Parts: sequence; C-alpha cells; structure tokens
Amino acid sequence: MDITDLWTELATPGGRILYLILDGLGGLPSPSTERTALHTAETPSLDDLARDSSCGLLEIVGPGITPGSGPGHLALFGYDPLRWRVGRGVLSALGIDFPLQTGDLAARVNFATLNDAGEITDRRAGRIPTDLNRRLCEKVRAEVRLDFDGEVFFEPESEHRAVLVLRGADLSDDLPDTDPQTTGRPPVEMAANSDAASRSAGLVADFLRQAHAALADEAPANGLLLRGFQRYDQLPGLRERFGLRGLCLAEYPMYRGLSRLLGMEVAPPPDDVEGLFDAVEQHWEDDIDFVFMHVKGTDSAGEDGDLPRKVDIIEAVDEQLPRLLAVKPDVLVITGDHSTPAAMVSHSSHPVPVLLHARNARRGSAYRFDETACLNGALGLRPGWHLMGLALAHAGRLRKFGA
Amino acid sequence: MDITDLWTELATPGGRILYLILDGLGGLPSPSTERTALHTAETPSLDDLARDSSCGLLEIVGPGITPGSGPGHLALFGYDPLRWRVGRGVLSALGIDFPLQTGDLAARVNFATLNDAGEITDRRAGRIPTDLNRRLCEKVRAEVRLDFDGEVFFEPESEHRAVLVLRGADLSDDLPDTDPQTTGRPPVEMAANSDAASRSAGLVADFLRQAHAALADEAPANGLLLRGFQRYDQLPGLRERFGLRGLCLAEYPMYRGLSRLLGMEVAPPPDDVEGLFDAVEQHWEDDIDFVFMHVKGTDSAGEDGDLPRKVDIIEAVDEQLPRLLAVKPDVLVITGDHSTPAAMVSHSSHPVPVLLHARNARRGSAYRFDETACLNGALGLRPGWHLMGLALAHAGRLRKFGA
Repeated sequence: MDITDLWTELATPGGRILYLILDGLGGLPSPSTERTALHTAETPSLDDLARDSSCGLLEIVGPGITPGSGPGHLALFGYDPLRWRVGRGVLSALGIDFPLQTGDLAARVNFATLNDAGEITDRRAGRIPTDLNRRLCEKVRAEVRLDFDGEVFFEPESEHRAVLVLRGADLSDDLPDTDPQTTGRPPVEMAANSDAASRSAGLVADFLRQAHAALADEAPANGLLLRGFQRYDQLPGLRERFGLRGLCLAEYPMYRGLSRLLGMEVAPPPDDVEGLFDAVEQHWEDDIDFVFMHVKGTDSAGEDGDLPRKVDIIEAVDEQLPRLLAVKPDVLVITGDHSTPAAMVSHSSHPVPVLLHARNARRGSAYRFDETACLNGALGLRPGWHLMGLALAHAGRLRKFGA
Repeated sequence: MDITDLWTELATPGGRILYLILDGLGGLPSPSTERTALHTAETPSLDDLARDSSCGLLEIVGPGITPGSGPGHLALFGYDPLRWRVGRGVLSALGIDFPLQTGDLAARVNFATLNDAGEITDRRAGRIPTDLNRRLCEKVRAEVRLDFDGEVFFEPESEHRAVLVLRGADLSDDLPDTDPQTTGRPPVEMAANSDAASRSAGLVADFLRQAHAALADEAPANGLLLRGFQRYDQLPGLRERFGLRGLCLAEYPMYRGLSRLLGMEVAPPPDDVEGLFDAVEQHWEDDIDFVFMHVKGTDSAGEDGDLPRKVDIIEAVDEQLPRLLAVKPDVLVITGDHSTPAAMVSHSSHPVPVLLHARNARRGSAYRFDETACLNGALGLRPGWHLMGLALAHAGRLRKFGA
C-alpha cells in the first residue's frame, strides 16, 4: 500500500473541494525579460489569495519526468502515475464519449501524409478539417474487414485525430506505437512486444494494410499513425477511493474522458474561460463534493512558444477568480498538470506552482503566485500525487490515523 | 527494504541522542492574533538554539494524514507507520503495564451509557471516576466465563477507559470496532471481518453479552465499547534496529507503553515539566544511548482549544531548556508527534517544527523556533520517520554506505 491507500482507509464525508487546473501552468523565464508568464502577468487576485494560502511547488510525477496530460492529471487526482497507467488510446476514446467496454483495445490515431516512398512528410496531414476526418473514417470503416470474432471501431476526433478500438476476446496492449514522432521515415512496423500480443499485432497490422489501401488515393491524409495502445480496464474511481462525487468542467475531450474514467460526472464543455466560471456557478449547488475545472489555453500558448498569450490567459483567469471565491469552496486548489515553458515550446519536467486555500491552511511566506515566490510556501516542493491528500485533509475528509 | 533498514545495516556505536517531544506541538494562527502558540510564546532559549541548529518541518506520517499519538511517535522513532501498525488495544495494554504475551488479542474499552433501547447516550459514561471503573472491572471479571481454552483479562485504565485482553491460541484481530464513534445508535455488532477471525469474533461477542448482563443494573456505566483490536506481536526494538539502549521519561501510560514495545527502559512517571527535566539529570549517567522525554501538556491544551495554556507550557519548557544543554547530549532533537492547533481543538495533519542540535548540524536561516521560521531551516520539509536517521548520523552512529 502507499499513502494514497491510507487516504482511502481514512476517508469520511466532509467539505467541498474545487480544483482549478491551468494546463501547463509552470514556465521558465523569457530570455528577453527574465520573467516567466506567471511573473509577468498582472494577477492581483491570485497574489492576494497566495498570501492567504498554503503555497508550494508540485513535482507532478517525479524528478526529471515530463508528464503528458494523462499522468499529470492522474497525479493531481491522487493516483501515482507509476502505479496507475492510462494510455493515450483509452483517454482519446473516452474523450469522444466512445462507450468503451472492459477488454477493449484502444489506440490514438493521427491522419498523416506519406510520400511515394512511404515516408512520413506530415505527422498531422496538415491538420485536415474535422469534416474531412469524418468522411475518411467512414471510408475506412466501409472498406476494412478483419478476420476475427470481434468488432472494429474507427471514430473521428477533431482535425487529424481519430480513435481505433478493437473489441474481442484476449486482446493485448503490449504493442508499439507506429508513430515514430518524426518525419522522413516510414511508420514503425507493427510487431508484438511479447508473445501474448502477437494475435493483436496481427489484427492491427491487417487493419493498417487495408486502411492504407482505402486511403491511397486521398491527399493529404493518405496514412495513419497509431500510438498509446491500451486495453480498457476500469480504474477505481474518485468515489470508491476517496468518497468524492466529482464533476468535470473541461472543454477538451481528453480531460472529460479522464474524468469519466475516474467516475466523475461531466458537464457540457464550456466555450471559453468566462464560460468555465459560469459553469461553476451553475453547478455549484449540484450534489457534488469535488469540482475539476480545466483551462487548456495556458498549455496551448506554451506549446506555441507564445508567452504573451499565456500571460493573457492567466490574467483572464485572475479576473474571474473572485467568482470562485464567491461560491465559497471549503478547499480551493490552483495549479497545473505540468509546466509548458514557452521558451521550450513543449511540456517540461519543471515543478508547478500550487496554492491551497482553506480555512485551516497554514500560511508560509509566498507573497505572490509564481514559480519563485511559491518556493517560500508552507507546502514545500513535493510530488504531485500528494495534492489530493492535502485537499482531502483540509476539507475535513480524512479521519485521524491510529490512536 | 526502506531507508530505515539501511540505518540498521550501517548502525554503529556512537554518541547519545536526546529527544524532547512536545506532544501536539505544531499549530495554526489564532484568529485574533494571527499567531500560533509557538509564535506567541517568549522562548529565548529555543530561539537561540534554533539559530544554532538544523531546523525544518516534519510531515509526520504523510501528506494529509492526521497522526494519532501511536503512529506519530513510531514515525519519530524511525518506524514508518504505514509499515509498522500498532493498534490502540496493544498501546493501552502496554500503557497500564499489562504483561502482554505474543499472540494476545487486546482491545481498548470505553465504559459507556446505553438507554433502554440499547442506544449509546454517552460514549464515556460521564467519565466515571477511576475507583468506580476498578469496581466494575472486578464485577465483569467475576461474572464473565468464556467457553475456550484460554484466559480473559479485563483491566481498568483511568476514568472510563479499560483494556480487554484475550489470551489463547490462534486469535485474530481482524475485528471491527464496536464503538460507532457517535451517540444515538447501538454499539456496532461484533462480526468478523474475515473467516480467520470468526472464532475470535464469537468469543468477543460472548464476552460482550455476559459483560452487558453484569453491568445491566449499573448507572451510568451500563455498556462497553471496544476498539482498536490488535494481536500483540513484538516489534523489533530500537536496540535491534538501531543499536540504541533507550530510556523513556513520560508521564502518560500510552507513551510508556509504546516505549516498552520498542524495548526501551521506562523510568517512573515525572509529575510535571520540571520533574521531567529532573529525571533527565538523574538518569543521564545510566547506561543508555537514547532518551525520549515526553511533554503531554502542549497537546492537551491544543485539544482544549486553550492557546494561552499551550503558550505557558512551551514557555515552561523553554525555561528548563538550559538544563538539557548542560548535560551535553551529542544530539538534541526538539519536535512534536503531530500538530494540535488550538483553533481546531484536535490533532491535525499540519507539519511540525523540528530542531536538531549537534556539533556538526548544518545551520540554515531559521532565526526562531516556530512554524514559519523553520521553513527556512536546513532540514526542509520531510517525512517524520526521516528524523531518526538524521539523529543517528549526527551522533556518529551510522557508518559510511559503500566504498
């Protein structure tokens, strides 16, 4: 058992917890200003709140680990990502509301562009429009016939993204990605990582052969890249583990999918930052213990190397913040699922500032909400999966351990 | 193995270690003064010492966990409480000097008041006097006869508290508490949590039936509530694990009991704070490596919501502190086993300030001994069970690891 199991053992009803997750929140200083997005943003509400909260930094998965959004969020929800692995395929399927069943094998699909030599020239097929994606998925479904006692599902997400699901007995996810994560090479050949997966590998290879034939006369989306194979086996949810009836308020499919995987209710996607805060007000009286709010824009801006846009989004959140305080959550947590420094145009392993506001939160000396000031907070620097225990404790949801 | 096992592997004779544990030491600011008891107390000796020590904060059991005194102290003694679980029953029995034998099944007992419907109206039977407790225990012992090849012990503690011990072959502690921790309901029915415990459950149920019959005409103590069932299996002691001959100086039974469980010698209980410091001077020349001094008043004051009394006790300790320095321990540690903020009138999960004074202790920037200043200490924020390793190392009691 690890400490998260002790939370399960000690869980008891209590106050309400609100997580505001700014995806990719942490950053690095811009080479020109020597300030991160958080340093740069004018955030009077966040800064006031930081002075009246327990602050710190979360090393989301562990030292040196750059989290994907799945492991990053699992950690924040109290699931050590080394113990609970959720593949991209399952997350993608959940994110489009696909009704996964236990034992289904799911993979994330990119439509891609291949040249005459079969080498990848664009891993995203020029981000084809979603309408074209839908037509191509229909075409693949119509032409592919696999020789097995099961079913094949091939479903569009948005732009160049789709989902492959195989349903049948004894499927294995011990399969490699066919996406080499680079251009100028052909897709990786599908070959099982272990004997137990050889039948599944054969089915996927057959699927790819037929699908590529079906797409041969299309441009630019004449190829498929698969990654994140995973068999779907239900995780114990937030309710089962921590006694929390959860509600997800998120615009992007993957976060809604992950929330469903953990047994949360999922509200319709809000349109923008303001809509996200509208949704909290709208749902606050629902029969829920835990609200997960997700802001994607901070991560997207970081991935685009656009520090000023990241600043704008942080400021937009800061402007809305008084609305969160007005609903009076017993515990309010603000943090990110990983850092996405604009200077790196990618996720990174750097710890993420965190703020925990509650009646009995002990204050430290963080005078502002940023990567530097939070070093002086009462929470210190700690693993991301500690967060849920701290939130539960401050909501009065954990009984005393032992006499 | 965990890091504490490496301490065992590397243990070697060395200097003497003195732990001064102020129970429930950590706190939260008073709403009126915005200062904790440690912030408020005038502690010139502690503050001088903090400036000349390694300071930090101990998260005693783990994030979000509010430690009971048992797990709290186990952690300070170098036993990760997730790995070493000691139930209330065993601690209570040890605390009254009951000579537990391996395989004994012990439970903590409350005398309680039941109404005519069998519902609990007072979980402590109005805190009956200890004399009455003794008489009732005798009565129960005289009237209960269990049908098994073993023995039943039913011993008074103080006020409404008693201890039940069953001695016999193959007893199991996989039993529920019968204390529902609330009033207005009957006690929880005794039913085994697993097949292996069904015989033990039957014995306990039979004991309760007969004991309740014996107490039927008593008031207010006409019922019993049992909790913290545990089979007694000796833990490896401080001597076996870390080469320490320990001495306990504590007023309260439970701390003496826990010390015995870890193989420490136990001196007669001191009467008050001054008596505790007398006892150190008196025993300092004994053949011991490790002295555990325990001050209960800080916790009791916190549990009573009495911040001024907590301040008084901290100041009384501060006044005595030069006497400890005068005996020149090689390592002096001052900390608590958990926080007990007066503002919460209970134990809490907040980290506890710690100070480690030794010739080679590296100083940080803690200018004072309190929850805020210790954030700037050289020890950082870390799990409580790290402490023993730090103490052993600073006493020169751990050899180099590897070549």
